[in-house]
Amino acid sequence: MKRGTMPTMKDVAKEAGVALGTVSKVFNDIPVGEDYRRRVLDAAQKLGYQVNSYARGLKAGKTGTVALILPNAYDPYFAALADSVCQTLARRGCRMLMAVTGSDPDAEQQCIRMVEQNKVDGIIGLTYNPALEIPASIPFVSIDRYFNPAVPCVASDNFGGGQLAVEKLAERGCRRLLFLRIGADVPGEPDKRMGGFQAACQARGLEHEALALNDRDGYEPFRVFLRSHVEGGRLSYDGIFCNTDRLAFYVQNMLAELGLRVPEDVQLVGFDGVRRFGNDGYYCSTIVQPVGQLAETSVNILLEEDRSALPSLICLPVSYAPGGTTLDG
Amino acid sequence: MKRGTMPTMKDVAKEAGVALGTVSKVFNDIPVGEDYRRRVLDAAQKLGYQVNSYARGLKAGKTGTVALILPNAYDPYFAALADSVCQTLARRGCRMLMAVTGSDPDAEQQCIRMVEQNKVDGIIGLTYNPALEIPASIPFVSIDRYFNPAVPCVASDNFGGGQLAVEKLAERGCRRLLFLRIGADVPGEPDKRMGGFQAACQARGLEHEALALNDRDGYEPFRVFLRSHVEGGRLSYDGIFCNTDRLAFYVQNMLAELGLRVPEDVQLVGFDGVRRFGNDGYYCSTIVQPVGQLAETSVNILLEEDRSALPSLICLPVSYAPGGTTLDG
Repeated sequence: MKRGTMPTMKDVAKEAGVALGTVSKVFNDIPVGEDYRRRVLDAAQKLGYQVNSYARGLKAGKTGTVALILPNAYDPYFAALADSVCQTLARRGCRMLMAVTGSDPDAEQQCIRMVEQNKVDGIIGLTYNPALEIPASIPFVSIDRYFNPAVPCVASDNFGGGQLAVEKLAERGCRRLLFLRIGADVPGEPDKRMGGFQAACQARGLEHEALALNDRDGYEPFRVFLRSHVEGGRLSYDGIFCNTDRLAFYVQNMLAELGLRVPEDVQLVGFDGVRRFGNDGYYCSTIVQPVGQLAETSVNILLEEDRSALPSLICLPVSYAPGGTTLDG
Repeated sequence: MKRGTMPTMKDVAKEAGVALGTVSKVFNDIPVGEDYRRRVLDAAQKLGYQVNSYARGLKAGKTGTVALILPNAYDPYFAALADSVCQTLARRGCRMLMAVTGSDPDAEQQCIRMVEQNKVDGIIGLTYNPALEIPASIPFVSIDRYFNPAVPCVASDNFGGGQLAVEKLAERGCRRLLFLRIGADVPGEPDKRMGGFQAACQARGLEHEALALNDRDGYEPFRVFLRSHVEGGRLSYDGIFCNTDRLAFYVQNMLAELGLRVPEDVQLVGFDGVRRFGNDGYYCSTIVQPVGQLAETSVNILLEEDRSALPSLICLPVSYAPGGTTLDG
């Protein structure tokens, strides 16, 4: 081997005293005898041989790279997902390309073109883009949004989460429940939180009401609504379930402005399980999304070799965590 | 062109009625006449030709991909950085590979090997790994940590930030200042916050003290220290500067436990500019890191073609934002 040039597979074969094909097998994860494998790896290490992953990608048609599409990376739920997906992929020997698309509606479609161009092996996407076209040939796992039966969707058990919120509020003495929702126009799995809330209230015979707004409405209508439901210093509701922790945080401030105490006068449950500073306490009592399991499941489905019988929707169990806005013993 | 096979450059050349070299020039961004360029792009679109980026990477030695190394993606400062770097790279036509390394000390070194293996064009790294070996040949920009003059480091003006905190506290009537710090062992640019604090206190002739702890000490010593500095219901300090917003948040709770009001009895300034839920209000009055500018500058330096005269350290200006823990008019 010449000095100053990068070693090749041939150099490794010579050093290890094996056939070139054996070296190739080792670096393409094709089984060879352990003794041969050892000799090849030792020789490769000695020579400082590095697999040229471009040449490798060309041959195997695999890049070992998965793209994660998120609206942004700063929202704490998205940030936690990015962290978990990245770690899960690393454990599977894969790298994660990240695309944040909030400010660029074309970015998601560009991501899909990357797969077609062989730049990534597949995509895990959490997208609010209703027009996204996902070719059936592309390994794609959608988080929180159901496209069609051919695109596996992984989500929290949002319906069950709505039921769980009611159950926890009822157990803590609430009898008149309110559901507050703010979110995007595009339908998604999180919409089922309201269905779970209503079903559980009906099953328990609890008085309930819901106010569901769109992002563009802003938070002000909630303030107006709450104010109009205070009489003699008391709110008409003793338990409120908000569709996100963020909304619960705002609602808590609105209630304070109205002179109402949380949790003494009104109990409050949010959804998501967002933690202060990413890993500290919860903002409020909340239905916690299983972020680690969402990541794990998404990666497993994406990397599944047999793509002939994939599920169309997987809902993962949520849990309740007290966070100071409910009367927990 | 045969049906059912992927079109090649040759097919595009034939369709466009130009030489193969012209097609190659167009897809390698080498200038050709606009008429030729149009014909090639139209033909490529008509045939559904897609640049094989692996073959392209092999030739040009560029992947259009940059790796971002972070300890984790859930910490709000890291999450904001990831978001900004991703967006900045996208504007430069680059993709971002993300590696979170908190749980795996080898992951950073693996990232560096990726560059050597031609998988990414360069690395932007925020790392607490003191043993990280960065070969001089690798485009690497370090955020918040200075390695050596050959590795450009981009950071906030942490010293200036410490001075700014003192200035703001002094302007709001504080006379006896306390600096509290908790952080990693590995020296980094953020350590300069303390130097700025002390220099500004000395310049203004303000009484001051500092308590600097290591992560493994935990927060309890702060509680003990504060408790031991309360006499007759008053704290010995009327202004506290904490090296992070997270610490300021904890300290605020500790002060509340001691019956001290923030900001009436003690004013409090943090550092970072962390926002609730990623983009809502600040947790406390704070010195805000210019995350967008940190990302922009890091990317610019990383992608700089002329690498013969790079700066070794760039400090970007911070700003003050009131957040309810200071007496702002």
